[in-house]
Amino acid sequence: MSQDRVTAAVLIIGDEILSGRTQDTNLNAIARYLAVHGVDLAEARVVGDIEAEIVAAVNHLRGRYDYLITTGGIGPTHDDITADCVAKAFGVALYEHPEIIAMMTARWSGELNAARRRMARVPEGGSLVNNPVQGPPGFQIGNVFVLAGVPVIMRGMLEDVGPRLRTGAVVIARTLRVDGSGEGVIAAPLEAVAKAHPDLSLGSYPFFSAEGYGSNLVIRGRDAAEVEATLPELEAALRAAGVTNLTLLDAA
Amino acid sequence: MSQDRVTAAVLIIGDEILSGRTQDTNLNAIARYLAVHGVDLAEARVVGDIEAEIVAAVNHLRGRYDYLITTGGIGPTHDDITADCVAKAFGVALYEHPEIIAMMTARWSGELNAARRRMARVPEGGSLVNNPVQGPPGFQIGNVFVLAGVPVIMRGMLEDVGPRLRTGAVVIARTLRVDGSGEGVIAAPLEAVAKAHPDLSLGSYPFFSAEGYGSNLVIRGRDAAEVEATLPELEAALRAAGVTNLTLLDAA
Repeated sequence: MSQDRVTAAVLIIGDEILSGRTQDTNLNAIARYLAVHGVDLAEARVVGDIEAEIVAAVNHLRGRYDYLITTGGIGPTHDDITADCVAKAFGVALYEHPEIIAMMTARWSGELNAARRRMARVPEGGSLVNNPVQGPPGFQIGNVFVLAGVPVIMRGMLEDVGPRLRTGAVVIARTLRVDGSGEGVIAAPLEAVAKAHPDLSLGSYPFFSAEGYGSNLVIRGRDAAEVEATLPELEAALRAAGVTNLTLLDAA
Repeated sequence: MSQDRVTAAVLIIGDEILSGRTQDTNLNAIARYLAVHGVDLAEARVVGDIEAEIVAAVNHLRGRYDYLITTGGIGPTHDDITADCVAKAFGVALYEHPEIIAMMTARWSGELNAARRRMARVPEGGSLVNNPVQGPPGFQIGNVFVLAGVPVIMRGMLEDVGPRLRTGAVVIARTLRVDGSGEGVIAAPLEAVAKAHPDLSLGSYPFFSAEGYGSNLVIRGRDAAEVEATLPELEAALRAAGVTNLTLLDAA
């Protein structure tokens, strides 16, 4: 694997996310999937089912990052306009892909109405993304992957995205859990260690619950040895600041 | 309430969302909260803890929509840079807000270290957003509300945002559940009804589970009478297309 940074963006398309009707889980699934492949998810956007918004977001994000993954809007109904928008963003036409037509003809015994044919449309120059779950495939055009919005189908399609990515060095993460101390006392030792390791990212993620409070301190970086060596350094700095209830969690 | 459209955007700030470490739930909570107040959530973005990215997103989104709500990055640690970025976006300085200093002095009996003082910083011209849960308040500057990232705290702060919003006509939503029919047969009647009601938004949200499959058809609009009248129209169109297993769900 190359050591350079490979970046990606996610574009979530759908009124149902913005209206609050649906809790998105695709962003988190894609983020975890990309992390395993050493690809940095650098930005995500959520837009509604509006052509101008989708086209503008696709063109901005595909130009700025190595990859763009979109979810949603590829079904057969009139509000599913992602294929149209991606084709427009690339300045190409849509055509009915013969493999999808053949797949759907086999599945529905020839009952291919206009709505179903919508799902066979792929931009010129695009290739198919396998759908191992249900329904027609997604597609790839250039550095853009167009996946379904239904989470179980999206995750199935994602398995066909990974092998196509130029992957970077995987980011290693180690988490130190602090119980019973607030960020107010954690901040100074954490910052001191962060400043000593400018190539690592050190973050603090506080939690509060009926059982108590504390924070998860996460050390991230591409150099596994440096990440591992920084862990005892952070522990020592915290203990010196009086923060003693520490638990090393499994690597994230 | 006025009948015009009031729009908002959400900016989620935090490496932990993009790394996949944390599943965001704030977007959905804010979307539902805004919907009740008749404010359209038009766009959402997720950016990492990078100053230039946050400043650019804040300036773009506050200029484009009536309101911007940010979540995350207002704690005491070095990676909490939201206040700095929002101040920079507005071209103003940060100052230690005397009310927050007083609150924190009372809470920590005078132990105000540098990290805690970070949380007292508010941009010049900003006002405080009450935090009924734990820790220091958020703030408002212009049309931007800066809230915590921890969900329970974010939701508490949100209660002080609603009363400050110019609210639009509330969007009414009615959901018709279809069991045992796919979108391939639903699409044509749905589109016909959608075309007859250009002021309404009709969407189809398919589901698949071990128990079966189908789709939730959602009719949304600001004219409650038109939404209600469209429901039997959609039912009739579906039945005419052979889609008969229909259940009216509670209003969303």
